[in-house]
Amino acid sequence: MKNVSKISPAVIKRLPRYRRFLTDLQKKSVERVSSGKLSELMGYTASQIRQDLNNFGGFGQQGYGYNVKALGEEIDGILGLGSHYRIIIVGVGNLGRAVANYTYFYKSEFEIKAMFDIAPSVIGTEINGITVLDADALPAYLGDHDTDIGIITTNRGSAQHVADIMVAGGVRGIWNFAPTDLKVPESIALQAVHLSDSLHELVYYINNPGDPCDPE
Amino acid sequence: MKNVSKISPAVIKRLPRYRRFLTDLQKKSVERVSSGKLSELMGYTASQIRQDLNNFGGFGQQGYGYNVKALGEEIDGILGLGSHYRIIIVGVGNLGRAVANYTYFYKSEFEIKAMFDIAPSVIGTEINGITVLDADALPAYLGDHDTDIGIITTNRGSAQHVADIMVAGGVRGIWNFAPTDLKVPESIALQAVHLSDSLHELVYYINNPGDPCDPE
Repeated sequence: MKNVSKISPAVIKRLPRYRRFLTDLQKKSVERVSSGKLSELMGYTASQIRQDLNNFGGFGQQGYGYNVKALGEEIDGILGLGSHYRIIIVGVGNLGRAVANYTYFYKSEFEIKAMFDIAPSVIGTEINGITVLDADALPAYLGDHDTDIGIITTNRGSAQHVADIMVAGGVRGIWNFAPTDLKVPESIALQAVHLSDSLHELVYYINNPGDPCDPE
Repeated sequence: MKNVSKISPAVIKRLPRYRRFLTDLQKKSVERVSSGKLSELMGYTASQIRQDLNNFGGFGQQGYGYNVKALGEEIDGILGLGSHYRIIIVGVGNLGRAVANYTYFYKSEFEIKAMFDIAPSVIGTEINGITVLDADALPAYLGDHDTDIGIITTNRGSAQHVADIMVAGGVRGIWNFAPTDLKVPESIALQAVHLSDSLHELVYYINNPGDPCDPE
């Protein structure tokens, strides 16, 4: 097995998608899957899939396919799922509320510990049992509470300031939903949700209805 | 130039991302960019980038790079941006409101024409100047109004039913935010936003802080 830390960013980007399709197959009680079948489901070429999965051991056997459960667990391990992540959300507008209600956070590995906003009308209100705190209290909160992930659902103008406070407060990663590019030190993980990418891909398939559509 | 309809789903998936980085470069008044520089920015290999962009003409010249503006326009053309898209949103909870407020819809090419919900407390309220209609009126609305894109921001249980109505009503594409897999005819474009993919990628980089992080 190659050293896991050598996996390229492009492969890392595809791993959650592999995981999602493998989880679906497991729900359908599928035990083994070929690179050809995965190719058909996912829209990557079979050779791309074999190359990707070879990066970390693979479990593929010629003419026999991949063990769905083992491959899914391998990917979970590489991603670091199964650990517990403490989360805060800053910005409790529509988007912040939508993210807070995201079903994923009801699984035990991700736990929203606190939410912050600047609006007096929002501070003190309760969302899923969590009382929204004044954003002014964010530095003090981070000083007192180890936090793994900071979610930014503020407007564009506040996002970098919030990110700076999160970084100073010791978060390990930032999940940015504000429509702006953030600058953080290299040691801090950063992911942004770019809705426009998905919308633009949709527009392509609207204009090319004959094309084999990526099943997502 | 190769036939554009031969572009693979995997390349189509990357096009909006190329477009985003090219737009950023244009904002910085960069006129030409090499595959090496794009590689550094985007986390794809330079050979992957050359191979991707060769799919549709490319504009690359050895040792000279790509013309940022021309390449961006070529990608816009392939995606079908520049046309006008009429949009409806079904499901006006936090997520529906967040999507409705998405800055992208203030650009002229995407226009939200109507919003629908089932909750009496929401029907009749106004969001960005649009009065929320009763979801029961959706089939009749679609019969009277040509609609390009239907956005589904309902809960999981209602999503397929809403998709069926949208398909029967002639929408060209569906953008699904409900956490469920929808079935639509092959002639209908479908894209889903999978927040979990982005979250899982973030978790990887939290656990591998030394890895070159994809700049997204």
